[in-house]
Amino acid sequence: MRAAATPLDHAHDPATRERWIGALGRLIGFPTVSAQPWARPHLQTCAEWLAGLLASIGMQRAHVLPGVRGGAPSVYADWLGAPGRRTVLLYGHFDVQPAEPLAEWRVPPFRATLRDGKIYGRGASDDKGQLLTHLCALESYLATDGALPVNVKVWIEGEEELGSPTLEPFLDRYADALRARVAVVSDTELAGNRPSLVYGLRGALPFELEVSGAPQELHSGRFGGAVLDPLQHLCGLVARMHDARGAIAIPGFLRDVRELPWGERVRNLREHEHDVDLIGKLGATAARTADGYGAVEHATIRPAITLHGLSGGYTGTGFKAVVPTSALARASARLVPDQDPRHVAAAIVAFTRRTLPRGLRWRLRFARGTRGVRMPVSDPAFRAAINAVRDVWGAPPPFTVTGGTIPVVEALHRRLAIPVIVLGFGKEDDRIHGADERFDVATFYKGVDTMIRLLAELA
Amino acid sequence: MRAAATPLDHAHDPATRERWIGALGRLIGFPTVSAQPWARPHLQTCAEWLAGLLASIGMQRAHVLPGVRGGAPSVYADWLGAPGRRTVLLYGHFDVQPAEPLAEWRVPPFRATLRDGKIYGRGASDDKGQLLTHLCALESYLATDGALPVNVKVWIEGEEELGSPTLEPFLDRYADALRARVAVVSDTELAGNRPSLVYGLRGALPFELEVSGAPQELHSGRFGGAVLDPLQHLCGLVARMHDARGAIAIPGFLRDVRELPWGERVRNLREHEHDVDLIGKLGATAARTADGYGAVEHATIRPAITLHGLSGGYTGTGFKAVVPTSALARASARLVPDQDPRHVAAAIVAFTRRTLPRGLRWRLRFARGTRGVRMPVSDPAFRAAINAVRDVWGAPPPFTVTGGTIPVVEALHRRLAIPVIVLGFGKEDDRIHGADERFDVATFYKGVDTMIRLLAELA
Repeated sequence: MRAAATPLDHAHDPATRERWIGALGRLIGFPTVSAQPWARPHLQTCAEWLAGLLASIGMQRAHVLPGVRGGAPSVYADWLGAPGRRTVLLYGHFDVQPAEPLAEWRVPPFRATLRDGKIYGRGASDDKGQLLTHLCALESYLATDGALPVNVKVWIEGEEELGSPTLEPFLDRYADALRARVAVVSDTELAGNRPSLVYGLRGALPFELEVSGAPQELHSGRFGGAVLDPLQHLCGLVARMHDARGAIAIPGFLRDVRELPWGERVRNLREHEHDVDLIGKLGATAARTADGYGAVEHATIRPAITLHGLSGGYTGTGFKAVVPTSALARASARLVPDQDPRHVAAAIVAFTRRTLPRGLRWRLRFARGTRGVRMPVSDPAFRAAINAVRDVWGAPPPFTVTGGTIPVVEALHRRLAIPVIVLGFGKEDDRIHGADERFDVATFYKGVDTMIRLLAELA
Repeated sequence: MRAAATPLDHAHDPATRERWIGALGRLIGFPTVSAQPWARPHLQTCAEWLAGLLASIGMQRAHVLPGVRGGAPSVYADWLGAPGRRTVLLYGHFDVQPAEPLAEWRVPPFRATLRDGKIYGRGASDDKGQLLTHLCALESYLATDGALPVNVKVWIEGEEELGSPTLEPFLDRYADALRARVAVVSDTELAGNRPSLVYGLRGALPFELEVSGAPQELHSGRFGGAVLDPLQHLCGLVARMHDARGAIAIPGFLRDVRELPWGERVRNLREHEHDVDLIGKLGATAARTADGYGAVEHATIRPAITLHGLSGGYTGTGFKAVVPTSALARASARLVPDQDPRHVAAAIVAFTRRTLPRGLRWRLRFARGTRGVRMPVSDPAFRAAINAVRDVWGAPPPFTVTGGTIPVVEALHRRLAIPVIVLGFGKEDDRIHGADERFDVATFYKGVDTMIRLLAELA
């Protein structure tokens, strides 16, 4: 047998594929939980390992970029050997969500497990598996052609799961270095049986609300009923964020939300049709609202408020009969493009002030907000992506709006003034952010093929 | 100087008092948290230590009673050397509430600290300090007179803070052994500057509610807004337990609650007048309701629902953007005498079933309920208590209704068919069940004096 002659031949070689799955396993093995301070050294080690990998496949200037303003390290490499051709910025993130609650995992979160054609572990799909499709495509070109069809810059972030808190100062420093004609981000899901092209994303405004009563716990027999109960009133506040119809009831929250034209709503519903089945398949129940929007619309083209955590008082073994001192709710608002996170934050503050009874103290903390995004789908880069998907998957990608938030997409789009091709290879049942996260191995291989085709189409 | 000639002389001897504070310190040192399995051996050790103490002061048949049906051990001793006289049952409990959250303590919870005339530590007031007043009074008689003025049985429980879960089977076995003419329970607070005689107590029905959605966490960008959110709906359910006026809104909950005559309400308000100041002093805020009852009434003669704990999802470091699988609320209903805990539980179940949207699963777990109590204040034993309090404190005790629940008072009253003198020496700011619990040393001494007088009055 002769050596692989084309990048696709290289990518289809069983030995190569086995090596790639091994590399993904190594990558999953770094517990890069950006949210948890103990994992900080692992972020650095993982970044160094990725820089080494990029150098080993023939990328140039591969190195770890130190974090800006205390942010996480990231990884940069480029190959600029095609003067006059387009420059493509490939983006991924190597940090992952916390693995807690650990008891829900049936496989170890940070040691890759291969089972039934899937590779399991935290980050397998979000985003280690997906970012690796980019690097494997680059390797396939450099190992066969000895060159890439376009100029390529690779930037792999280390704090995406925190909401990219230092992205703005990072781009203040590095926007010139990252300058490109188009960016490609693979951090989303297939729509059914093929990649979708996401041209719209929701923004997000994570927040935390703490409500406090007396500075010490009070005996609930002696004082229960007589004093303001911070747990009861936190629940009351959360409950009043939605009205009886299920619509968001925070005054001013929906002010800048445009009603979409019917055509756009119908197209969106058609693209997300399978989501309704999916909700049932996942064992969840669609929220029924009486505000004229369906469940899918509330998860895509409409804003939402979702609770992530509740805590307060004692819920351990036994029973502690006190009125606790404080209670806390974690939540995030998902925003549509016309909403300004600052206005939404102000609405939440005003609502909290008006709703909680005087005599309880409260504190609202907001994480950095991200606006929603709509891309210019007429850009020729999108045509290249359509061709690549059709070649590999047998059908053109649907154009969709996703309910998720990728701050970097919004930021790259705005700061570099370029289209961002959001082309994801995750599967619906990858359980990203949840226990037993996994990535389908066959889909991983098709992702590599797609990236190989896309780089050629962008040439 | 001659030896102490009377029980009161003995009780006022500085060396005796120093020894008693030392004994209370030892008693606090046993971490007898009945709610926490790790503390189980300490319950046994503490019970043995108390039995030894009772034997050493001259009580007879002092021994540890093993728990019935897996219940906690308790302590028994008696002195029956006064045939023909009344038999008095003295009750206390040596188990304590959990010390969590430990971070709120400024002194170690299980190593007694003396400061500014107070002894600090979990259980200092509830109930180790108070139960010790009984034993010191017995010692004072036996060390001077060599006899008690009445027959005495002592029973010290080890699971009161759990709601006395095996009290009924325990009394099935030991009711005959505990038979007495009157019982004395010291596990309540002074009313201002002197003991109150509590003739009424609220019942309690602790419960835990868990609401579950999908069996796995769901990405909140992809599904936030589209699926039923167990945290949001748990909050909604808790919020709807009270109406806009602040009154309990669970249908059927208030069915058996009698409106009290004005006279009784006015007397109750006068007795609890200082509670209103107390709420402010503790840094809490009185709950303002528009249902015709004031804060004090909601904590004494009216039922209440109090939240003890909330948990669900992730509230640790960082941010986990998922729709969590489940959320939990711990609460208890406080009941007035006409309410049957079984009817109240049924009302809570029906309310939960009707209120939660279909598609969320839920589970309600109830602890053993206790009915409220009203004592026959015309019994001569109450006259004895009035005299004892007037002698030691300079004024007769107010007769009060407390909002707390002491299952053993209800059970002794019902099972032994005797009046129970609930005569407490705690202070309002003892922080029972909370962090930095403490007991006032001077009040402890006066408690001993009161018990010495009470035993004489009961003769």
